[in-house]
Amino acid sequence: MKKINLIGSTGSIGIQTLDVIRSHPEKFKLEALSFGRNFEEGIQQIEEFKPALISVSSDDIAGKVKKEMTYTAPVLYGQEGLVEAAVYGDADLLVNAVMGRIGLEPTLKAIEAGKNIAIANKETLVTAGHIVTEMSRKHGVKLIPVDSEHSAIDQCLHGDSEKEVSKLILTASGGSFRDLSRKELENVTVKDALKHPNWNMGAKITIDSATMMNKGLEVIEAKWLFNMPYEKIDVLLHKESIIHSMVEYIDGSILAHLGTPDMRVPIQYALSEPDRLDLKGGDRLKLWEVGALHFEKMDYDRFRCLKMAFEAGRAGGTAPAVLNAANEVAVSLFLEGKISFLEIETFVEKALDSHTPISNPSLEEVLSADKAARSSVLTYLN
Amino acid sequence: MKKINLIGSTGSIGIQTLDVIRSHPEKFKLEALSFGRNFEEGIQQIEEFKPALISVSSDDIAGKVKKEMTYTAPVLYGQEGLVEAAVYGDADLLVNAVMGRIGLEPTLKAIEAGKNIAIANKETLVTAGHIVTEMSRKHGVKLIPVDSEHSAIDQCLHGDSEKEVSKLILTASGGSFRDLSRKELENVTVKDALKHPNWNMGAKITIDSATMMNKGLEVIEAKWLFNMPYEKIDVLLHKESIIHSMVEYIDGSILAHLGTPDMRVPIQYALSEPDRLDLKGGDRLKLWEVGALHFEKMDYDRFRCLKMAFEAGRAGGTAPAVLNAANEVAVSLFLEGKISFLEIETFVEKALDSHTPISNPSLEEVLSADKAARSSVLTYLN
Repeated sequence: MKKINLIGSTGSIGIQTLDVIRSHPEKFKLEALSFGRNFEEGIQQIEEFKPALISVSSDDIAGKVKKEMTYTAPVLYGQEGLVEAAVYGDADLLVNAVMGRIGLEPTLKAIEAGKNIAIANKETLVTAGHIVTEMSRKHGVKLIPVDSEHSAIDQCLHGDSEKEVSKLILTASGGSFRDLSRKELENVTVKDALKHPNWNMGAKITIDSATMMNKGLEVIEAKWLFNMPYEKIDVLLHKESIIHSMVEYIDGSILAHLGTPDMRVPIQYALSEPDRLDLKGGDRLKLWEVGALHFEKMDYDRFRCLKMAFEAGRAGGTAPAVLNAANEVAVSLFLEGKISFLEIETFVEKALDSHTPISNPSLEEVLSADKAARSSVLTYLN
Repeated sequence: MKKINLIGSTGSIGIQTLDVIRSHPEKFKLEALSFGRNFEEGIQQIEEFKPALISVSSDDIAGKVKKEMTYTAPVLYGQEGLVEAAVYGDADLLVNAVMGRIGLEPTLKAIEAGKNIAIANKETLVTAGHIVTEMSRKHGVKLIPVDSEHSAIDQCLHGDSEKEVSKLILTASGGSFRDLSRKELENVTVKDALKHPNWNMGAKITIDSATMMNKGLEVIEAKWLFNMPYEKIDVLLHKESIIHSMVEYIDGSILAHLGTPDMRVPIQYALSEPDRLDLKGGDRLKLWEVGALHFEKMDYDRFRCLKMAFEAGRAGGTAPAVLNAANEVAVSLFLEGKISFLEIETFVEKALDSHTPISNPSLEEVLSADKAARSSVLTYLN
């Protein structure tokens, strides 16, 4: 029986994590649960899984939960509560499905507490990969990917060492606008951008997918998760998203992971690895129904956000944190209708250009670079 | 340093095995070498690798070799010599690249001598899979596939157990005639049949590829190599032969092995596994140049030899030996222009229909069923 703490339970990854736990009650047990503001979803989860510790975003919501729940367990709140839920008890694994930089602290604290981490929180590795990976080595805990691309690579590698690998090949669908030229991108709307061809995801990640920043952040995550230099990471356009990613070995062999676009597969693997379990109610990939898989070389001039991500990754230090923070603010501005689609990349570029990276930064320096980048992006509006 | 005995050194697999050994002199050393009648090629190999034991097909060729070679080593001949070369010295691995049923005895003797076996000899597993696998378990030796399809599966599995696998998916190019109807197959010539679209191989295997019997024999091999029931083995048409085969897991994940059509990749992996080595001078697969990969459901009525192979495999006992022997004779008759392409399958079908399988047969019973099938196929000519 694997005991699990889950933070970010009411988001898309959180809900599907609970789906996996629900379908294997003989294998998994939820120990602690944390969510933000979605009380309706959260209270149902609490009643169903009866976790021994609960944390929510505010005192107010904590009060509502205490009133509604039908059994007794501590209900904490705020960043402190979030961290308590992450490190709670003798759980074997923390599933970090929190969005944004608030996911960083619980990861670090859970590593110190000796828990393996299933990471769905991009910011953790993008902004503080050097700290997180060093701490995980020191405490002997595993960092297990949840993203379909990184899970694919993890499954292909199956423990193979970096020296046998010639390249990690992340596949990219190209997002909502893959067939548009840069000229045509000038006038796209928020509504257009939110139509992702293959995966049904949240707004932020769907926009990141259209700008290819999502793939850029994944490149940086891959660097840290698999301890690979950027020279060994490549991105390939593959519009069907059936091949989730690949590993090319020094002997020319390529191993690829294929599947339907069902996030429960990588989530379940993160919970069950190195073993596999039946996926209850999951569709099987029928390649003869798909018929054909297509591939195109990545055009880094067309997808400038991806290029910037490689550059920020190579610059290292605080640069990826600035990339990520500037992008988060720019995407929000786009979703609010305040800037155009192409201005997302312009704003991120400006933020990176005006930043002098600090190498091997402390956590405080990372957070401070993040904060400064967010402020400066807002000034570009005028 | 891995010491290797190689039997069948002058065939396509043998030559490429030596190519791999040549390119990694720090990793591999050739101990014993055996070839049949190709004196010109064989003597060059002997002079280059200076094996400590040599075996050839006949006394006559042995005499020529002794006269020509510039160092001293025993030169044996015949079936006895072949077996001596297979079991020679303290080699770690036998590469069995002999064609036909004469490859069976050296495999069994090498297993008894505690050597791991890299099997390129199909007949070994097709006709006596139950004996070979039982002996290999008893003596604790590994059976390592050399075929690109089985190597692909072996690399995907990476030690995973049968219970985590829902299906092995062998890919099939469809061979020279994949786009012809059964009606159109009636008048195809030997010359047409010898044009394989993707791989450059010998005549027998190219015809087997056109009839899909080759895939059928591979299905039976897969059953024994990976200890899988036939229900868990499937064949998928994939005309580009870029995906060499796949494994579908119980969680819906599919792992696939991709590469260029370079047999040195699986051969080298068979020699180096579980590690990987650089492939010197090998082309890298560029999926963006390939552009697209296509898949079609297998049509078992169109490719009756494949259907028969599954049936013979399920019938078990001596049936696969009869399938293989009848096919060998029928293909020879086709290559000699004595029967038509479609008669290959008719002849094999007749041989299977007239045979009553003996279950769990001894080696003698297997060889006797093989011999009887060969004789009976010749009688169909009249």
